[in-house]
Amino acid sequence: METITSIVEMKRAAGSLRREGRTIALVPTMGALHEGHLSLIREADARADIVVVSVFVNPTQFGPLEDFDTYKRDLERDISLAQEAGCDIIFAPGVDDMYPEGSATRVCVSGLTEKLCGAFRPGHFDGVCTVVAKLLNIVRPHLAVFGQKDGQQAAVVERMVSDLDMGVEILRSKTVRESDGLAMSSRNANLSEIERREATVLYRSLEHAVSRYGAGERSVERVVSEMRDMIDAGETTEIQYVAAVDAKTLEDVDELKRGVMLALAVFVGKTRLIDNVIIGA
Amino acid sequence: METITSIVEMKRAAGSLRREGRTIALVPTMGALHEGHLSLIREADARADIVVVSVFVNPTQFGPLEDFDTYKRDLERDISLAQEAGCDIIFAPGVDDMYPEGSATRVCVSGLTEKLCGAFRPGHFDGVCTVVAKLLNIVRPHLAVFGQKDGQQAAVVERMVSDLDMGVEILRSKTVRESDGLAMSSRNANLSEIERREATVLYRSLEHAVSRYGAGERSVERVVSEMRDMIDAGETTEIQYVAAVDAKTLEDVDELKRGVMLALAVFVGKTRLIDNVIIGA
Repeated sequence: METITSIVEMKRAAGSLRREGRTIALVPTMGALHEGHLSLIREADARADIVVVSVFVNPTQFGPLEDFDTYKRDLERDISLAQEAGCDIIFAPGVDDMYPEGSATRVCVSGLTEKLCGAFRPGHFDGVCTVVAKLLNIVRPHLAVFGQKDGQQAAVVERMVSDLDMGVEILRSKTVRESDGLAMSSRNANLSEIERREATVLYRSLEHAVSRYGAGERSVERVVSEMRDMIDAGETTEIQYVAAVDAKTLEDVDELKRGVMLALAVFVGKTRLIDNVIIGA
Repeated sequence: METITSIVEMKRAAGSLRREGRTIALVPTMGALHEGHLSLIREADARADIVVVSVFVNPTQFGPLEDFDTYKRDLERDISLAQEAGCDIIFAPGVDDMYPEGSATRVCVSGLTEKLCGAFRPGHFDGVCTVVAKLLNIVRPHLAVFGQKDGQQAAVVERMVSDLDMGVEILRSKTVRESDGLAMSSRNANLSEIERREATVLYRSLEHAVSRYGAGERSVERVVSEMRDMIDAGETTEIQYVAAVDAKTLEDVDELKRGVMLALAVFVGKTRLIDNVIIGA
């Protein structure tokens, strides 16, 4: 496995792989790899000749009060985990290479980015779109793999790629969970013992919604209210949002049906966690 | 020569040309081709195996009070002129193909776009950047040729391509002029006889500035004031701006020197014309 830190070198490597007729899959990450990322890498490995994993903690997608400075960074560990999962090239550029002085371009997706997490993280998705556009242009993959855990991010990236004719297939990969259902996240490591225990309510409330749907319930209002009650019962939990939207357009819906994404963001102590399920998926 | 109207077909054609090892140059236009465009096409033809000329009157770069509806469209004429100049493929997509329902993505360059024309045409450069990003992604050229007449546009596109790592060379091509110095523009056709005569003051004022520089004058303030007086003397002319900026960063400058762009926008009757010169270029 190769580690590349220079944009120019990454472009050169990708160009020559393409000319040799190899297919390339990109798995964009901010490092701090966990089983969720490894599952994306394995999926990429099954689908393409060459798997590029980018490791870049992107400053432009963090708000001023968010955890950019304390976000976990351990490139050596990430390299060894990624390699085991089937990664061929780690691309780990520096912040100054990605955003040299004078950088002034942003890619913005309107509508989809204004709700759910976007409503609470102004500018976040502009940062995501801009860095993903750059990574796609540098690596020129045939396929890029995103986790369904960041469901809104996946929908926004799909929209951008389609709108800008970027010509890359976007694959949404299933959320990987701990044995008690908690969605894998680099931020789970920040939870205290009681917070870790209470954090299971995110997925439990989503499962509750799915089982209510299975039992014939169709009212978003009732189900969301039940989910909120479950989450509010925790000592360390504070809801940011619980919503039901179309999984592709992210438009609000009143009625539960196949293709509806139930999504939530909850502070557990000081750690903000998100999760979602798509009905029928 | 081939005319392609479908995005999918254009991507396919470009992909197979690239695989054959041919170099591609793109000349993006809004049609209504004149000698200025033809010069860009010839320059592209001299530099690449295949010249693609896009013809697309882009609605998103026109303001609500601007001339989108009346902008001249004559594809048959454009095709025949482009072919004569060395074009291999005309790419003329429809508005609904370029912006299908649900399109929500914009590419924005801050700073550079807020001055000169950008100050008077809010949203114009977002529209330009977005459509150029799309065209570059669809055609995947090695080289794209822009006219220096739209000097701010060229600077903004260069910035975008660099910031988003788009991996295409941008070439600025010299402004082509009528025998009396008026810069070629599709909008010149809208001028009445007296307006056409008075329109020559745009270039005359720029030449005046260059000759004052040649005579040792360095004060932007004095030279711009003289230029304004020349233009104001017309019956049908109304200045929108006259400015001196760094040709690359578009930062304002106080002193004339090599690399300074003198740029202006003037209404001649109802027709808005622009022009510029770069000192020492």
